[in-house]
Amino acid sequence: MVIHGGAGTILRQNMTPEMEKAYIDTLTIALRTGYQILARGGSSLDAVEATIRVMEDSPLFNAGKGAVFTSEGTNELDASIMDGRTLGAGAVAALQHVRNPISLARLVMEKSPHVMMVGSGAEEFAKSQGVKLVSPHYFWTERRWKAYEAAKARADSGKSGAVPGEERKLGTVGAVALDKAGNLAAGTSTGGTNMKRFGRVGDSPIIGAGTYANNLSCAVSGTGDGEFFIRNNVAADICARLRYSGVSIQQAADDVVMKELVAQHGEGGVIAMDRKGNIATPFNSAGMYRGWVTSDGKITVKIYKEN
Amino acid sequence: MVIHGGAGTILRQNMTPEMEKAYIDTLTIALRTGYQILARGGSSLDAVEATIRVMEDSPLFNAGKGAVFTSEGTNELDASIMDGRTLGAGAVAALQHVRNPISLARLVMEKSPHVMMVGSGAEEFAKSQGVKLVSPHYFWTERRWKAYEAAKARADSGKSGAVPGEERKLGTVGAVALDKAGNLAAGTSTGGTNMKRFGRVGDSPIIGAGTYANNLSCAVSGTGDGEFFIRNNVAADICARLRYSGVSIQQAADDVVMKELVAQHGEGGVIAMDRKGNIATPFNSAGMYRGWVTSDGKITVKIYKEN
Repeated sequence: MVIHGGAGTILRQNMTPEMEKAYIDTLTIALRTGYQILARGGSSLDAVEATIRVMEDSPLFNAGKGAVFTSEGTNELDASIMDGRTLGAGAVAALQHVRNPISLARLVMEKSPHVMMVGSGAEEFAKSQGVKLVSPHYFWTERRWKAYEAAKARADSGKSGAVPGEERKLGTVGAVALDKAGNLAAGTSTGGTNMKRFGRVGDSPIIGAGTYANNLSCAVSGTGDGEFFIRNNVAADICARLRYSGVSIQQAADDVVMKELVAQHGEGGVIAMDRKGNIATPFNSAGMYRGWVTSDGKITVKIYKEN
Repeated sequence: MVIHGGAGTILRQNMTPEMEKAYIDTLTIALRTGYQILARGGSSLDAVEATIRVMEDSPLFNAGKGAVFTSEGTNELDASIMDGRTLGAGAVAALQHVRNPISLARLVMEKSPHVMMVGSGAEEFAKSQGVKLVSPHYFWTERRWKAYEAAKARADSGKSGAVPGEERKLGTVGAVALDKAGNLAAGTSTGGTNMKRFGRVGDSPIIGAGTYANNLSCAVSGTGDGEFFIRNNVAADICARLRYSGVSIQQAADDVVMKELVAQHGEGGVIAMDRKGNIATPFNSAGMYRGWVTSDGKITVKIYKEN
């Protein structure tokens, strides 16, 4: 199984040893959670959901608790999940009261005839499924609020463009997994971009863009400039290259992330795994929180380009 | 240029000569509108938008005026458009006050940094762009309201499942075009499914599912069971087969619509055009409102399987 916790301008000089340790520890716990499910014969879908829940519950990542704020000072959460065995898929967007969006995406997949539900309708469905809604205050963290205030002050003073530095857009989380039965699954969860406006929906809840899984090819979760991921149909296109061109997962992922996205100045990265368990984790940004666990339980976690 | 006005259980025995003529006339006007733009050297994007506006403004189709009703008795409109030259794309969902969703999708593409906007945020953006919002009453038609009342009565009486017959889900509209400069474009617009619930979003506003265009491969617009179109990434997958497998547009479209979707019991059809102007219009339902115009201005319109 492979996970990511977002790609972007992650530089060692901007990181304290404490922050670095916190990220590594949480990514390790997330991987161990998924591994334990897979090791005892659980499904890749269960592993993906449980692993992403760990990251949603952590304030470190821009998903669930710790999500960034919209221009209105609210949190709007998106997620999607896909089962490579059945092509079953679920996606939710613009949630304001759901603690674990990835689990609601799975409920949409399994308990509704639909694939995608948004806004208050999605939350009404959540209630009908017995999901306890949380107060919007649950998602609040001081770090993201300060980032919002800084971005808002900048916007109010008439300066355009994004806030420089680490807080711009970071921390979408995702996971891909292969289980003992040979089934692939993928999932992605995000709080969107800081100061986002106008009911913007990024790539994370878009099946084919931020998330795709098909046992015939591969499983992919992406993170980065969502608009570029949608236009390039990134997750599904990597799978299509495997399926129709017969290239390796590494080449397919590199061709999309390191060539096509770079040519368009679209920043980001993906995690990808084929049905034999080969993985690729290319990113064209300074860093990407990422890690993987092999079938023997060995966990690797990396943050920067060099490690 | 090729257009569709929805696929489904369209049978000659359920159609009056007057209805048939109305559909043929409107599809012809829509095609002529697009052709005139292309013939004078206009862009495929302009042709797609103008053609879809004709169908949105017609009460015959489930898009714009004449949209079906949600379970709450409201209209919620979705649309998307894509430029094969730049991969620029715009998508809107869950609109309640926008007369021409396809034009707002184009504004999202050209006047915002985003690809997808939903709900009141999308309408706020519309206002900021000078789009005049309309009363929800504008979308009301007696035919769709009766279909809603019939479906609601059926639901309230405890019967499950869809209402039989023509009104179930019909009339999503779409267009693909190739202009003199060799650029492809695609667009799709819909009112969703009758009695839809829970903020459901179908495939029409999902770039890659209902709409895709890439000058390297083809342009596609789909109509049918939206959930199957999302899971199978239908529009982009047809383009990927052309690009990576090198098959013809007819084979790529047939393999997806007549094999993969049929195997999954997903009903619907697509219109597709490659960069040489070859077209394919497969559908696995009883009928699909469809038509095309060739570069010499010859217009063909069909409804049923046989013609």
